Amino acid sequence: MARDGQLILVTGARGFIGRAVSNLLAKRGCHVHATKQLACQPDPYPDDPVTWHTINLLHREAVAELMVALRPSVIIHLAWESANHWNAPSNLDWTAATLHMAKCFADCGGERFIGIGSCAEYDWRLTHDESVPFDEVLTSRRAVTLYGIAKNATYDVLSKFFEMKGIAFCWGAVFHAYGPGESRPEIISAVTMKLLRGEPAYCTTGNQFRDFIYLDDVAEAVAALLSASAVGRFNIATGVGTSVRDVVIRIGELLCRPDLVRLGVLPDDPSNVVARIDRIASEVHWTPRVSVDEGVQRTLDWWRRKMNHQYT
Amino acid sequence: MARDGQLILVTGARGFIGRAVSNLLAKRGCHVHATKQLACQPDPYPDDPVTWHTINLLHREAVAELMVALRPSVIIHLAWESANHWNAPSNLDWTAATLHMAKCFADCGGERFIGIGSCAEYDWRLTHDESVPFDEVLTSRRAVTLYGIAKNATYDVLSKFFEMKGIAFCWGAVFHAYGPGESRPEIISAVTMKLLRGEPAYCTTGNQFRDFIYLDDVAEAVAALLSASAVGRFNIATGVGTSVRDVVIRIGELLCRPDLVRLGVLPDDPSNVVARIDRIASEVHWTPRVSVDEGVQRTLDWWRRKMNHQYT
Repeated sequence: MARDGQLILVTGARGFIGRAVSNLLAKRGCHVHATKQLACQPDPYPDDPVTWHTINLLHREAVAELMVALRPSVIIHLAWESANHWNAPSNLDWTAATLHMAKCFADCGGERFIGIGSCAEYDWRLTHDESVPFDEVLTSRRAVTLYGIAKNATYDVLSKFFEMKGIAFCWGAVFHAYGPGESRPEIISAVTMKLLRGEPAYCTTGNQFRDFIYLDDVAEAVAALLSASAVGRFNIATGVGTSVRDVVIRIGELLCRPDLVRLGVLPDDPSNVVARIDRIASEVHWTPRVSVDEGVQRTLDWWRRKMNHQYT
Repeated sequence: MARDGQLILVTGARGFIGRAVSNLLAKRGCHVHATKQLACQPDPYPDDPVTWHTINLLHREAVAELMVALRPSVIIHLAWESANHWNAPSNLDWTAATLHMAKCFADCGGERFIGIGSCAEYDWRLTHDESVPFDEVLTSRRAVTLYGIAKNATYDVLSKFFEMKGIAFCWGAVFHAYGPGESRPEIISAVTMKLLRGEPAYCTTGNQFRDFIYLDDVAEAVAALLSASAVGRFNIATGVGTSVRDVVIRIGELLCRPDLVRLGVLPDDPSNVVARIDRIASEVHWTPRVSVDEGVQRTLDWWRRKMNHQYT
């Protein structure tokens, strides 16, 4: 865990993962400052136990001023483009902004920088034929999307820069995170929402394997990366592949609407995306706790409550 | 060559390669606008046939304004950190600035972007044992220096970004360029200057091979990349390896001071850095014209004139 008195700055702290991370750290007694992009009125999370800073992180001067004002010991950087992010031109802006923030952080005496990436940084084309787990070192990072390429570029430059500066640098490549509050509902939340509304959920055949990781496990993993000695690139995943078919059939059963799950409608996705997690397990002493069955149950309970609340 | 009426913007046009490129294009009738970083008084090159723009390319607003004002069809981007560039933190700024410029260029209707990189983008560790030419596709780009890593990051992001935007994108990886006017004298100019001053030139054993390319050939290659159909990554080199030992001994002979060439004094550099140039030869129809013997002769003639001029 972080040392006493360390000021931790979490960017993108109103996002799906960012909020879970900052709340977990605050709950454990860390001194968490958090950035959010827009001054929303009313604030959706008025009770979150963090000190908020409303800032446009793409604004260089504002970032420089925040760094000088806070002099954070640690940055956990989750902020990035969220809308249509796979191929948004703004991936270039976020790369530039992250490099700029890193320089300011180093100039202000920063000690540890944790960047958050994703499984999209790996070359998904490599695993069409069989399920080979993605390894931090051995798997090619020839990414397919602009997002994946921009994240890799950021990682590569920061990795050398922080090494030169003597600043500890970790990178967490988060696989298929799911859970309560997804801002961009992926397959598990998307199918759940459809079924709760009584609408059909159109799917691929679902033969592809994914490494689904529950939100709380992601937050625990990022918190574990704060531990002093770990540096480098770490997959944040479960190490277990689950077929999309199994997951959506399970959701259909749990919601008693198997009839609404329509497999084989959408074009197939031949990629199998499963992580090797030996590295984070051995060097950071973190392993996931929530099974897919349990996580799916918790997620659909959350959506049920939320949608009842919305519609009643 | 560029089409009639195309506005070509050359950044870093007062640098060693930038000046040769912009003057060559202007001589061939191109409409060349050129950026320089500082408003030097007096201008060292008042007669260069280009339209100068004094601008700090790290200043986002200034770059955006220049793009809107000029709406260049083509950018040839040579500007980058020049002082202690291998591991300067400002490599992060130049990466960020280049991505920003690329976005502005795309927004303003740009058609072709030519980025200039270097052999430092390749993994020099791979060639310690034998001379294997560096190939644009096959050779790993796991660079050693922050400069090489930042250039690679820039290339990777721009490559995808411009592909998405339908903008033609070339990247010229320039090997060991030498010739009149080197702003950071490398081995050929450095040894020449020493010998012309009657001072000893301390060298390694000189067993390492380099791909020395004469300045005029570099400029011709970049001009050739303007040709409409070529896209992607191209080595700009001769494809011929010459040992550093042979080159410095030749300089000693030509200047009648072989006694001042002190081989074996500096620690050895085990890397052999020689390019494969099949790609630019076949796709861009460019091949180098100036042999190392001829280029070295021209370079030392230039330094002799310059130093006579300085000291008499």
